Amino acid sequence: MAYSPLLQQLLQALQCLPGVGSRTAQRMAFYLLQRDREGARELSVALQEAIEHIGECERCRMLSEEPLCRLCTASNRDVAMICVVESPADVIAIEESGVFRGLYFVLHGRLSPLDGIGPGELGLERFEARLSEGEVSEVILATSSTVEGEATAGYLATLAKEQNVAVSRIAHGVPIGGELEYVDRSTLSRAIAGRLGIASD
Amino acid sequence: MAYSPLLQQLLQALQCLPGVGSRTAQRMAFYLLQRDREGARELSVALQEAIEHIGECERCRMLSEEPLCRLCTASNRDVAMICVVESPADVIAIEESGVFRGLYFVLHGRLSPLDGIGPGELGLERFEARLSEGEVSEVILATSSTVEGEATAGYLATLAKEQNVAVSRIAHGVPIGGELEYVDRSTLSRAIAGRLGIASD
Repeated sequence: MAYSPLLQQLLQALQCLPGVGSRTAQRMAFYLLQRDREGARELSVALQEAIEHIGECERCRMLSEEPLCRLCTASNRDVAMICVVESPADVIAIEESGVFRGLYFVLHGRLSPLDGIGPGELGLERFEARLSEGEVSEVILATSSTVEGEATAGYLATLAKEQNVAVSRIAHGVPIGGELEYVDRSTLSRAIAGRLGIASD
Repeated sequence: MAYSPLLQQLLQALQCLPGVGSRTAQRMAFYLLQRDREGARELSVALQEAIEHIGECERCRMLSEEPLCRLCTASNRDVAMICVVESPADVIAIEESGVFRGLYFVLHGRLSPLDGIGPGELGLERFEARLSEGEVSEVILATSSTVEGEATAGYLATLAKEQNVAVSRIAHGVPIGGELEYVDRSTLSRAIAGRLGIASD
């Protein structure tokens, strides 16, 4: 093979990135070596610093290099509401929508007993502790609509009710602008089952 | 924005990779931080070592961490033939086909006076020096079939002829297994113009 050992090592390492196979890795490696060595150096440093310093926020488990993340320390958030999500990417998506001003709790997964993922792995003792502090008045469950996501939501709802905290689940249904024709069957069935009454004038 | 500074830095750095925009960078960053920190560490090291040590082979300009690359130092190659290509990726493609046992010369580009890319940028003094050593008896031009690739091939052909070295150009035409119906017009016109006579029995 014409690859030198260091090139081979780089190709292998690039394939740890999701969605990157051997072809893409080759394209990336040649691009960096031929045209953007400065970018490669910056990426190397950024990766090193990220894995060294980024951990989880002690309060909400969002990725953060500080003990408390920027959202948990922000002064303009509504501490009475907590939105529970499965991943940091979900936090970003909700933040980008700009419709929620409360705080978060990131599970980093969902209950899945067969895979050995129980309440401990999802940090739920920390979640319970936070509810018991008495500041939180509503928990919004934004776990996925998969079987495991629903089971996780059910479990969390029980926890919240035990602490006398109101619980809600984000609505599932037809996306705005989505055409019925192209919406999958389970979304459609959920949209019809969850229909809302319209008040008469 | 909910990204912490280090996360922001990582997202930015990942976008130096070709084909990676902000969405993909986010997916990659979260994946590495949540599931594969070891892979991220290895990638950081591999990038660092690659940019520090990988340069160009003194003889053929292939990417290599040694002064001479593995092909130029291999004992089983035909030193009388040199295939000239535009990029290291072309060398890999030809090597993978396994049909060529000679050596290479990598231009790292093609002549493009408007972009300031002349013979010097393509290392052609080194190419000429190699031809004048007298070992090479044939040069195969495998530059691209773009206007600039053709111009480069023409220039190289002149150089080789001056040194009394035989020159050939790789064939362009309909790919094997390709259906005429789906072949673009310029390939087709090249395939017809370059038709080969068939000897009668």
